[in-house]
Amino acid sequence: MIRISIDAMGGDFGPEVSLEGVAIALLRQPDIQFIIYGQEDVCQPILAKYPKLKDRIVFHHCDVAIRMDEKPSQALRRGRYASSMWRAIEAVKLDEADVAVSAGNTGALMAMSKFCLRTMANVERPAIAGIWPTTRGESIVLDIGATIGADSQQLLDFSLMGGAMARALFEVRRPTVGLLNVGVEEIKGQEEVKEAGRLLREANLDTIDYHGFVEGDDIGRGTVDVVVTEGFTGNIALKAAEGTARQISDFLKAAIKRSLMAKIGYLLAKSAFDILREKMDPRKVNGGVFLGLNGIVIKSHGGTDGEGYAAAIKVGYDMVRNGLLQKIDADLRKYHTLRVPPSDPQDENVNGML
Amino acid sequence: MIRISIDAMGGDFGPEVSLEGVAIALLRQPDIQFIIYGQEDVCQPILAKYPKLKDRIVFHHCDVAIRMDEKPSQALRRGRYASSMWRAIEAVKLDEADVAVSAGNTGALMAMSKFCLRTMANVERPAIAGIWPTTRGESIVLDIGATIGADSQQLLDFSLMGGAMARALFEVRRPTVGLLNVGVEEIKGQEEVKEAGRLLREANLDTIDYHGFVEGDDIGRGTVDVVVTEGFTGNIALKAAEGTARQISDFLKAAIKRSLMAKIGYLLAKSAFDILREKMDPRKVNGGVFLGLNGIVIKSHGGTDGEGYAAAIKVGYDMVRNGLLQKIDADLRKYHTLRVPPSDPQDENVNGML
Repeated sequence: MIRISIDAMGGDFGPEVSLEGVAIALLRQPDIQFIIYGQEDVCQPILAKYPKLKDRIVFHHCDVAIRMDEKPSQALRRGRYASSMWRAIEAVKLDEADVAVSAGNTGALMAMSKFCLRTMANVERPAIAGIWPTTRGESIVLDIGATIGADSQQLLDFSLMGGAMARALFEVRRPTVGLLNVGVEEIKGQEEVKEAGRLLREANLDTIDYHGFVEGDDIGRGTVDVVVTEGFTGNIALKAAEGTARQISDFLKAAIKRSLMAKIGYLLAKSAFDILREKMDPRKVNGGVFLGLNGIVIKSHGGTDGEGYAAAIKVGYDMVRNGLLQKIDADLRKYHTLRVPPSDPQDENVNGML
Repeated sequence: MIRISIDAMGGDFGPEVSLEGVAIALLRQPDIQFIIYGQEDVCQPILAKYPKLKDRIVFHHCDVAIRMDEKPSQALRRGRYASSMWRAIEAVKLDEADVAVSAGNTGALMAMSKFCLRTMANVERPAIAGIWPTTRGESIVLDIGATIGADSQQLLDFSLMGGAMARALFEVRRPTVGLLNVGVEEIKGQEEVKEAGRLLREANLDTIDYHGFVEGDDIGRGTVDVVVTEGFTGNIALKAAEGTARQISDFLKAAIKRSLMAKIGYLLAKSAFDILREKMDPRKVNGGVFLGLNGIVIKSHGGTDGEGYAAAIKVGYDMVRNGLLQKIDADLRKYHTLRVPPSDPQDENVNGML
C-alpha cells in the first residue's frame, strides 16, 4: 500500500478537482490509501458523488484553507497546524503518509513544507523538479522556482537530487545531467554555473553521468535526462516553453477555422492531432516534485482538472514506489562522504564556506 | 538611400547565404545601397550569379574571415582592422554605412562592435534585442545574450532602448514595457528586478508605459510590447521557446506520416499549416539588434538561409528609416537629464554609484 495525503482545498477549483483526481487515481492505482484533509461542508457533497471512494479514504476536517493569493509568510501564520495544506504535509512527517499532494499556491506550499519537514541533511536548499516532455521522451528540469539564484554547491546538490529522481522515474541506471547555460563562448555563463561544472567533472560520480553545459533548446530536444539551473531561469524557461506551445495551438485552431477545406482536412488528420495533443498535454506531466526535504511533496498545477490532478498523484506514487527519498539520501551521503572526511573538523569549515 | 554594410563571410554558409540575402533584399527594398566586405575569390563567383547586383553594390576585399567558433578575444586580435566583420562595422563608424549586418558569431560580433563603435553616452552596457512572434503580433525581448546579469540601472536602460526600438518598429507612440520575473509572491524575483521596477514606476516616463512584472508565458501572449530581462535568462527563454516550436513541428510531422488519412487531411488543411508556418517562421523574425552602441549592428542567425538573411537586412533597414539611434539617444538623454541635473557634480557621483 502507498499512503498519499491530499490537501483537498488547494488549487483554483478546490475539492471539485482534487477529489475527482483522487477518484481517477484510485481506479488506476488500486494500491493507494488516501488521507484527505479539507473543509467538511465543501468536501462531503463532492465525495458523495464518488461512492466507491468511501472505503479507500480517510477524511479529516480542517477549519482553515490556504488561499491561492496568500503570501507564504501569511499562510504560515494563519495555516500552521490548522490548514488542510499543513495537515497533508504533517501526515508525511508523522509517517502517516508516504507523500503529500496539493494544488495550492506554490510559495505557501514550499514555506510550509520547509517548516514542517525541514531540509535534508547534506542539502542546503530544496528545489522544485518538473517533468518536461521532449522529442526523446521526458526529462527532469530543476529548479523551476523554489528559490531565486543558486551557488555552485547548490547546483551540485540539484544535480544529485535530479539524478536520483531520474533513476526513480525513468529506470535509467546512470542518468545524464546537464547544466543550463548560454551558448556564447568565453563569457560562457554565470560564474556559479562554470564552477558547478568544474565540481561535477571533478567529482566523477557513478550515480550520474555529467554531460556538460546544455542550452535552452536542448531541453525540448531531450539532450540529457536532467537539466539543472537556478529557480529564476528555470521558472522563466518553463513558462516561455508553455507559452509557445499554447500560442502554436491557438494559431493552428484559428487557421483551421478559416476555411471549410481546412476543417475537413483537420477531421481527416485528427489521429495525428490527437497524438500531438497527447504528447504535449501539460496535464500528463503535471506535478512539481519538491526535492531536498525529509519527505516528498508534490505540487499539482493550480488550474488543472481531475485528469491532471490524477497525473500529479501518479508522480508521487511512482516516486514512493521507486524509493526516491532513499536514493537522494544515499547519493548525497555518498558524495559528501567522499568529499569531506567527517573526522576532520577543518574540512567541515571549508565545506560550510562553499 | 539607406546604406547597409554586409559582412559576407559570417554565418554557417558564408557568402552563399549572405549574398543571396542581399539579392532578395534589393528586390524588395530598391532604395538600399550595399557595401559588401568579403574574400574576393569566394564572393565573386557567387556575385556573378546575381548580375543585377552589379550596379547596386560596392565590394571590398578583406583577407581575414572570422570563424564561427572563434573566441571573441581571439577574433578581436586576429580580425581587427582586417576582417570582413570588422570592416562592415567600421563602415558604420566612418559614416559610410547606416547599419551593419553579419551572420557571424555573436560573441565576436559584439566584442568588435563594442570596440569599434563604443557604448553610447548614458548607457552602461549594450544589449541584444530580438523580435518574438506573439499571439497579438510581435514583441521585442532584450537582452537575449549580450551580457550575463544586469543591475537595476542597466535593466532601466534596456527598458528605454527597447521602448525606442518598439516605437521605431511597431509605430506605437508609447509602448508597454514589462520586466520578466517569476510568479511566486513575496520572494518575487531578483533584487535587481524589483529595484528596476521601482525605478521605472518612479521615473513615470512619457516615452514608455511601464506595465509591471510579466512571466515567461506572457512573452508569447504579447502582454507587452517590450520584455526586459538580463542576457542569461533572456537567451535561455528564447532558446527554450524555439526548442518547443521545433519539437511540436517534429511531433506533428511524425504523426501525419503515420497514416494515409492523416496525409490527405494534411493536404486539405495545408492552407492552415501554411499560415502557422508563416506565423512561426523563425526566418521572418531573424535579426538580433545590438542596442546601446554608437551605431546599429544587426546579427542574423548563423544557420539561416537567404530569405532569413533578407529579413535581418529588413530589420536594419526599418531601424534606420525610423531613426532608431536618434530615438534611443533622445530617450536616454531625457531620462538622465530629468534624473541628474548635470550642473551638480555631487549628483553625478551618486549616479556613478548606481
